[in-house]
Amino acid sequence: MTSTEVLREVPVFNGISPAAFKEQISSRREPAVLRGCDIGACTRLWNPDYLSEKIGKKTVRVHVGADPNLDFRSKNFIYCDIDMGDLLFRAKNRINEDFISDEKEIYYLRSVSGEQRNIEVSNIEKDFPAIAEDFEVPELFDHAQLFSSVLRVSSAGVRVWTHYDVTDNVYCQVVGHKTAVLWHPCQADNLYLQGDKSEVLDIDNPGEMFPLFPVKNRWEAKLEPGDVLFIPALWFHNMKAEDFGIAVNVFWKELDKKFYHPKDYYGNKELVPGAKSLAMLDNVVKQLDLLPPTYRDFYARRAVQKLQSKCYNND
Amino acid sequence: MTSTEVLREVPVFNGISPAAFKEQISSRREPAVLRGCDIGACTRLWNPDYLSEKIGKKTVRVHVGADPNLDFRSKNFIYCDIDMGDLLFRAKNRINEDFISDEKEIYYLRSVSGEQRNIEVSNIEKDFPAIAEDFEVPELFDHAQLFSSVLRVSSAGVRVWTHYDVTDNVYCQVVGHKTAVLWHPCQADNLYLQGDKSEVLDIDNPGEMFPLFPVKNRWEAKLEPGDVLFIPALWFHNMKAEDFGIAVNVFWKELDKKFYHPKDYYGNKELVPGAKSLAMLDNVVKQLDLLPPTYRDFYARRAVQKLQSKCYNND
Repeated sequence: MTSTEVLREVPVFNGISPAAFKEQISSRREPAVLRGCDIGACTRLWNPDYLSEKIGKKTVRVHVGADPNLDFRSKNFIYCDIDMGDLLFRAKNRINEDFISDEKEIYYLRSVSGEQRNIEVSNIEKDFPAIAEDFEVPELFDHAQLFSSVLRVSSAGVRVWTHYDVTDNVYCQVVGHKTAVLWHPCQADNLYLQGDKSEVLDIDNPGEMFPLFPVKNRWEAKLEPGDVLFIPALWFHNMKAEDFGIAVNVFWKELDKKFYHPKDYYGNKELVPGAKSLAMLDNVVKQLDLLPPTYRDFYARRAVQKLQSKCYNND
Repeated sequence: MTSTEVLREVPVFNGISPAAFKEQISSRREPAVLRGCDIGACTRLWNPDYLSEKIGKKTVRVHVGADPNLDFRSKNFIYCDIDMGDLLFRAKNRINEDFISDEKEIYYLRSVSGEQRNIEVSNIEKDFPAIAEDFEVPELFDHAQLFSSVLRVSSAGVRVWTHYDVTDNVYCQVVGHKTAVLWHPCQADNLYLQGDKSEVLDIDNPGEMFPLFPVKNRWEAKLEPGDVLFIPALWFHNMKAEDFGIAVNVFWKELDKKFYHPKDYYGNKELVPGAKSLAMLDNVVKQLDLLPPTYRDFYARRAVQKLQSKCYNND
């Protein structure tokens, strides 16, 4: 479907102002690395010792697994509740003698708010007040659009599966390096999605099960400590921690509130008209299922043609 | 979309029995030329003089146009009510001094039943009883499945636009030669359809407006007098009269009655579940239209992916 197969580097902007960001970057709906943004003292202060002292006693739920390539299909990880101090210590090490499942196991935190069964939208100020003032939210959007802020901690090597968020994502890499691979939302039909996640885990060698997967037609960014990666809503991203890492994602609602699911805690529930249209499509499929295969195929293609001509962007 | 770009000749079967047709051909849902079928005395008897004598006084409604390439978009023809005898005389001539619009004008009859505003399903026995016994319906299907029989008369050169029918079509070429070009129903999304017709009129040089149009990936048949062309339902076909021609189409319902529109006189109204699914899809499109372009495109692609994975034939 895609006419060009080109690997693009995400452009890097040095010390860009919020005004210039709005004008030149966010309106283009393409990813960008912002270097030299002021994201607060965290880039200087945050390390395992400092954070252990400040928030070490807080219990967090982490992914623990032997394979750094997290696999949501085979669930090659377990969830464990451990103290933040313990997590930081373990995630920093390559080998943990006091392991849970494997001495080379990896750890990954994506902070959530609230107690179990009572999840709320993540908010670093509320969830980690002792360190909140170290982090300055980059004022790239109007504050009213803020959706959530999420603290992430990763062992070296952790790779998080390709997925998209429905909100704009301002990914602040505080400690460590990450490689981000991104795909344009128009690749949705080539990514073999299960909900918001791609079934393809090995993005460099997807295998013959996934012939359309765009191995080359993607964007890449190498994030350094202090870098801010702008990931527009719906852009697919796959993030790999090159070493021990700490990051804060700040999610923003680009659109009017009415478009977002009212009970979306992770920022990954389909937009309301999107969810409705997909649910309505299930009824179209039921109707098509009344037909014998040749006829079903034919009318499905007619339906596809209609969607493509009426709803696809031409550019 | 298509993996192979191959022009295929429609296979010719000589003197095949109805039983062999059912077993080897109709079940495969691919076109075939049946040569040496018994379609009655018409192949011997029918010519303008004979038909003028038998049915010359019957008034019929014909397409008349200066360009033999009939164009449903620009409507490069008019409808005229003339006597069958007059039609046969005019259609046989290359030049008509007593022309209606142009001395080289062409004529094309696709018979219909009933009076104007009160159309019925065509039936050669009812519409042309004086010649009906000359034509033997090839008994390739159960008689209960018979939908309609249509008499066609064409000037040399007349080309009828690419379209599909929802019923199986047994096209009996009685007088003259025709070239038939056909496309598999899975080409539906490449044919730029307006309803049951392709917008592409020049099938050999579609032009840059129609980049996906399968110029090469098509089937071709050269019909001789007495040949029967089996066109399975939904196969697109484009028919060109190489010389003055008379033919009878016999249409058959492959599926149970419930699938067909109860008021379909031409055999081109969408199958009931097909029509319903396309109408339901209009509501999906309305829902998607609530979204800004990037989001609409994204969810449309998700919908397409769902249709493709759930409703397309894999083979």
